Formats: sequence, structure tokens, C-alpha cells
Amino acid sequence: MFPRIFGHEAGGIVESVGEGVTELAPGDHVLPVFTGECKECPHCKSAESNMCDLLRINTDRGVMIGDGKSRFSIDGKPIYHFVGTSTFSEYTVMHVGCVAKINPEAPLDKVCVLSCGISTGLGASINVAKPPKGSTVAIFGLGAVGLAAAEGARIAGASRIIGVDLNASRFEEARKFGCTEFVNPKDHTKPVQQVLAEMTNGGVDRSVECTGNVNAMIQAFECVHDGWGVAVLVGVPHKDAEFKTHPMNFLNERTLKGTFFGNFKPRTDLPNVVEMYMRKELEVEKFITHSVPFSEINKAFDLMAKGEGIRCIIRMEN
Amino acid sequence: MFPRIFGHEAGGIVESVGEGVTELAPGDHVLPVFTGECKECPHCKSAESNMCDLLRINTDRGVMIGDGKSRFSIDGKPIYHFVGTSTFSEYTVMHVGCVAKINPEAPLDKVCVLSCGISTGLGASINVAKPPKGSTVAIFGLGAVGLAAAEGARIAGASRIIGVDLNASRFEEARKFGCTEFVNPKDHTKPVQQVLAEMTNGGVDRSVECTGNVNAMIQAFECVHDGWGVAVLVGVPHKDAEFKTHPMNFLNERTLKGTFFGNFKPRTDLPNVVEMYMRKELEVEKFITHSVPFSEINKAFDLMAKGEGIRCIIRMEN
Ligand SMILES: NC(=O)c1ccc[n+]([C@@H]2O[C@H](COP(=O)([O-])OP(=O)(O)OC[C@H]3O[C@@H](n4cnc5c(N)ncnc54)[C@H](O)[C@@H]3O)[C@@H](O)[C@H]2O)c1
Ligand SMILES: NC(=O)c1ccc[n+]([C@@H]2O[C@H](COP(=O)([O-])OP(=O)(O)OC[C@H]3O[C@@H](n4cnc5c(N)ncnc54)[C@H](O)[C@@H]3O)[C@@H](O)[C@H]2O)c1
Ligand SMILES: [Zn+2]
Ligand SMILES: [Zn+2]
Ligand SMILES: [Zn+2]
Ligand SMILES: [Zn+2]
Repeated sequence: MFPRIFGHEAGGIVESVGEGVTELAPGDHVLPVFTGECKECPHCKSAESNMCDLLRINTDRGVMIGDGKSRFSIDGKPIYHFVGTSTFSEYTVMHVGCVAKINPEAPLDKVCVLSCGISTGLGASINVAKPPKGSTVAIFGLGAVGLAAAEGARIAGASRIIGVDLNASRFEEARKFGCTEFVNPKDHTKPVQQVLAEMTNGGVDRSVECTGNVNAMIQAFECVHDGWGVAVLVGVPHKDAEFKTHPMNFLNERTLKGTFFGNFKPRTDLPNVVEMYMRKELEVEKFITHSVPFSEINKAFDLMAKGEGIRCIIRMEN
Repeated sequence: MFPRIFGHEAGGIVESVGEGVTELAPGDHVLPVFTGECKECPHCKSAESNMCDLLRINTDRGVMIGDGKSRFSIDGKPIYHFVGTSTFSEYTVMHVGCVAKINPEAPLDKVCVLSCGISTGLGASINVAKPPKGSTVAIFGLGAVGLAAAEGARIAGASRIIGVDLNASRFEEARKFGCTEFVNPKDHTKPVQQVLAEMTNGGVDRSVECTGNVNAMIQAFECVHDGWGVAVLVGVPHKDAEFKTHPMNFLNERTLKGTFFGNFKPRTDLPNVVEMYMRKELEVEKFITHSVPFSEINKAFDLMAKGEGIRCIIRMEN
């Protein structure tokens, strides 16, 4: 659906609300979220799920839920929405179910990064993997999501956090996010599962996969300790990917889970993640390595394409 | 390792104890267990695991742990042990870590069935799948283990228990164990995952696989509801089996676990399972469909081979 306005990780201020909207008022500080929370469906009512039936991410949809129309146009022709957010724009229109109202004291140019990847990685660790204090955790993939997962493991009290990445240039940076050791599968002839098992007396207690690569998913599962190990998949796989393992790896009391947006319910939980930042339990500044004005947005894409830095803030100044 | 004495599901009375054994005394009523609990290793010390490093099942070992010798012989030649139990015998010798001391009031000719398959299925439901009250559970395979899993789901408060088996002759019996509905995959052209999803508004809340067939394992995983579904594997797969699924099935917040002996720690937990029977929370009589004297043990094998009945008690009378 083109043309469309991209962008989904952002912070903003409510300018106006539609008819019947009572939860938000002009002036509220908010984080837009690519997945919503209607608060009515079985998922929203379940304590475990955040996969709202009504507002779950849909990358194909380019219109508002409800009337099925776009709110953007140019010269009378529609411009489409993107994952319900379209934040590469000074003004956007969103479903109230995809807007999290946060503490107005929180600096929007910092906490904006909590609206997608960072919360995803953080939640994968603290909500799903739940590493016990003193445990050992392996993080596969040290991009923004993996670094946030490492940070989450550190906050949860893990004492060994092993970063696994094919790109050794990620390792130095990853120390700031709690990683204590590193494994580059390219440095070993043995399968990385075995390398990790040897480092940890039989396997890690928890692993979090943040690569999107199906081999890393299999490795992340097979490297957890039998008896109690839990592996969590976060990376989005290819359409034709196939997860394969011997079923005995499950029988030996390993658990495999996946998560979407770190199992956070966007409207209910995101305000609390912002409070973690306000209480200085979570540092977001270290995820922000660059900043450009909106007019230089293409510099931000270049940085991302080159894998330089972690997050680049795009400033909507005039 | 042959010749050896088979048999592992049994009940007995301690005749004598070896040097240094303080937990047991002659006259104690006990259940022998094919997997043990040393109480010292990381698994025994973990609240989650029952896969004791020292005494975990080993079908190849035919001798005592410790001195590595057999305690049986005939004409001076050793006869080997089987999974640490060897209970097709009037007297056997076992490691103290594989012996669960139980309430002496419990009838041994009934509670003997709790020493393997029944506890495995029961525990898979109550300890691992943990179906919430009012939930829907699918049980794949309605042999002794699956019927015990259904019974566990019923005890946990599940309100719909759907039995899935290729053998429709299991269905009538399975009603006694809490099954409320049945699906025979042979009656459908659609994949059974889809049949179950249509019956349950998107998927079951929990599933327990008790077949050993890898296709049933995949079906049991894929039939659970996204957002909160948990599948538990119990069946022992073939050596060359491969579990395959699209990783998105995990990303959509499904959980897959496996269990060994229903996650019961044999010495710590089995006495409590016997107490469940004593308090009439768990009925074991309905699992016992036949009984033969030891001299007719081959009749019991014939029944098992034909898939007739559930459990046949072998009476050690003279
Ligand atoms: N589940 C969700 O809700 C959710 C939300 C946001 C992002 N994601 C996904 O999380 C993943 C990570 O996102 P990101 O922004 O951090 O990506 P990124 O590209 O910045 O980082 C991925 C890292 O993984 C490494 N990697 C790739 N293959 C590897 C392998 N086989 N073994 C070890 N390391 C490997 C790369 O070198 C890179 O450093 C992506 O797949 C993304 O789509 C999921
Ligand atoms: N994990 C453990 O600790 C543990 C302990 C004991 C037994 N087991 C295993 O549990 C499994 C069940 O044991 P049991 O004694 O009840 O066996 P059983 O043979 O009595 O019952 C198995 C049932 O599964 C059905 N079945 C087979 N393939 C199927 C399929 N594709 N779909 C649906 N149903 C199918 C059969 O018709 C049969 O009724 C076995 O694999 C056994 O080895 C595991
Ligand atoms: Zn909803
Ligand atoms: Zn994102
Ligand atoms: Zn042990
Ligand atoms: Zn058995």
C-alpha cells in the first residue's frame, strides 16, 4: 500500500481526540505503539497475552481500524498509514488503543525509544525468560533488541550474561548493557550449543534469541540446561524458516517460548516501563547514540543500514 | 546386557537395608522408581528438575551404582538389573535413592501403579501443563499415561478435556478419566490442529502429548491457543524423530515443554501422590483392569501387546 508514511518508534503529545475518546486529552504525553490493547478481547483480558485480537500488528493494513479509511492525503489522494503509527511525521492519527499515556515529566526525546525495540528486549528478559538471581543467561544477537534483553537480564539479577553474535564489533558496546562474556560462533569449530554447555557446566539457565535467524533460534534452545532451562525467541523469522530439533531436547525438561513486544501490554504496562526509567532502574540514554533533525532523516537510515550505533533520534524541530 | 530381570512398576516392603542407609528400615512400605533422587546434585537441589545427575534412568546400565556390580546371580553367573528396579522378582536390590517410602496404610496392590506411568501422566498435567480452572485441554494418546494426564486435567479443574487418539476404542473408557469430547484424526481430512482450533475458538489452553509419535507432538504444540497456550510432551520419541514447526508458532506466544516422570521428584513427591489416593482425590482402581498371579505373567504381556485394558497387576503370591 503506497504511498504511505513509515515510522513507529516515537514519543508525542496529544493534539486532539476523536468523539468518544475519554482516556486521553489534549496535552497528554504519549508513546505510540505498533500493536494495541483494546482491553475487551480474550487476549487483553488474559493476564498472559498481549496479542490483542483487534489491534495486533498488521503490516498490510494502511488504514484506520473502524471506518477503514486513511487520515492522510495529498492533492486529494490518500496516503496510507503504517502499523497504526506513521510517526515519520509531525502529526499523525492513531487508534486510542495504540497510544500509551505516560508520565508528562519523562523527556519524550529519550523515552521515545521505549515504544518498540528496547521494551521488546527488556520484556523478553524480565517478563518471559525471568532469569533467577545469580543465573547465567545467553543473549543471541546484540542489536538494540539483544542489548535491551541483556539489560533486562542484568536488572533481573543474572550474574553471567553471555553475548553471542557473529559480529565481534558488538562486543565492546555490549559490556555497558551487562554482558560479561562473549562468544562468536565463527571462532569455534564446535556447535555453539556445545561451546556454551562447556562454559556453563551443562548449559545456560536462560537464553534470549534476538537475531531473526532460525539457526540461532535452534542454538538458543539447545544451549539451555536440561531440567530447568528456558529459551525465549524474539527475532522475527523468514517466512520459510523451519525450527527443527530432536524432541528429546524437550523431554529433558527444557522450555521454549516466544514473545511479541516483550509480553508488555502497551497501554497497561508501558507507563510503568517509563517509570522504571524515571526511578533510574533503567537507563535509556545508552541506547541513544545519534540524533539528527527531521530534514536529515536519511542519515539515520544510513547509520542503521551500516549497523552503526544503536538508536538515532529524529528531532521534529523546524 | 543379558540375562537381566525386568520390571519397574511395583510396590514392596523393605526386607533389609545396606550399611549407612538411615532413611529406610525393614518393614517400610515403598515404591521402587526407575529414576532416582540423590538429594545432592544440581537437579535434586533445583525446585524445577527431577532429572537427578546420579540416578537418572539409564536403560543400558545393568549393575548397581556405586560398586558397578550386579546383586543377582544364578549358578555363579551374574544376572543384570534393569533401570535400577528389576521388580519381576520376589526380592530385588535397589539404590536407596530410587526407593520412595510411602504411607504403610496404602494398599500396595493398588498404589503400585503410581510408581511410573500413572504418576507420569498425572504430573504432566498438574505439575507442568497446570491447566487453569475452567480451561480446555487436549490429551493426545489415551493409553495409561494419557488417561492419567486426563485425570490430572480433571483434578486441576479443566472443564473441557478433548481426547485425541487414532484408536476410537479408547474413547468410551476415557470418559471415566474426565475426557468430555473426542477427536480421531482419521475421521478428518483437515489437520487435527485445525479441527481442534475450530472446536475451541482458536486453540486449546493446554495440551499434553502421550503417544511417542512425533507428528502427534507437532500437532499437540500447534493446536494450543496463541497468546497463552502451553503444550507438554510426554511420549518418548524414536531416536531419529525430528520436531519441526514454523518459529512464528512460538513468536505468537505459545510455550512448549517436555517432562520426565511428570516432574515428580520420586522420593520427595511420590509419598504425596499416595496421600492424594488416601484422601480419595485420585482414584487408582480405575486404572487396574486385570490381575494375574506371577506364574501367569505372560498373560499380562499378551494383554499389553493387544492393548487390552490399562494395567494388569502381577501378584507375587506363592
Ligand atoms: N518479537 C517482537 O515483538 C520484535 C520486536 C522488535 C524487533 N524484533 C526482531 O528482533 C530481532 C533483532 O532486532 P534488532 O533491531 O536488534 O536487529 P539488529 O539487526 O540490530 O541485530 C541483530 C544482531 O544479530 C546478529 N546475528 C545475526 N545472525 C546471527 C546468528 N546466526 N548468530 C548470532 N548472531 C547473529 C547480527 O550480527 C546483529 O548484531 C529482529 O529479527 C527483529 O525483527 C522482534
Ligand atoms: N516422559 C516420561 O517420563 C514417560 C514415562 C512413561 C511413559 N512415557 C511414554 O508415554 C507414551 C505413552 O505411554 P502409554 O503407556 O500410555 O502408551 P500406549 O501405547 O498405551 O498409548 C499410546 C496411545 O497413543 C495413541 N497414538 C499413537 N499415535 C498417535 C497419533 N499420531 N495421534 C493420536 N494418538 C496416537 C495410540 O493409539 C495409543 O492409544 C509412550 O511414548 C511412553 O514411552 C513417558
Ligand atoms: Zn484486545
Ligand atoms: Zn520496532
Ligand atoms: Zn540428584
Ligand atoms: Zn513405566
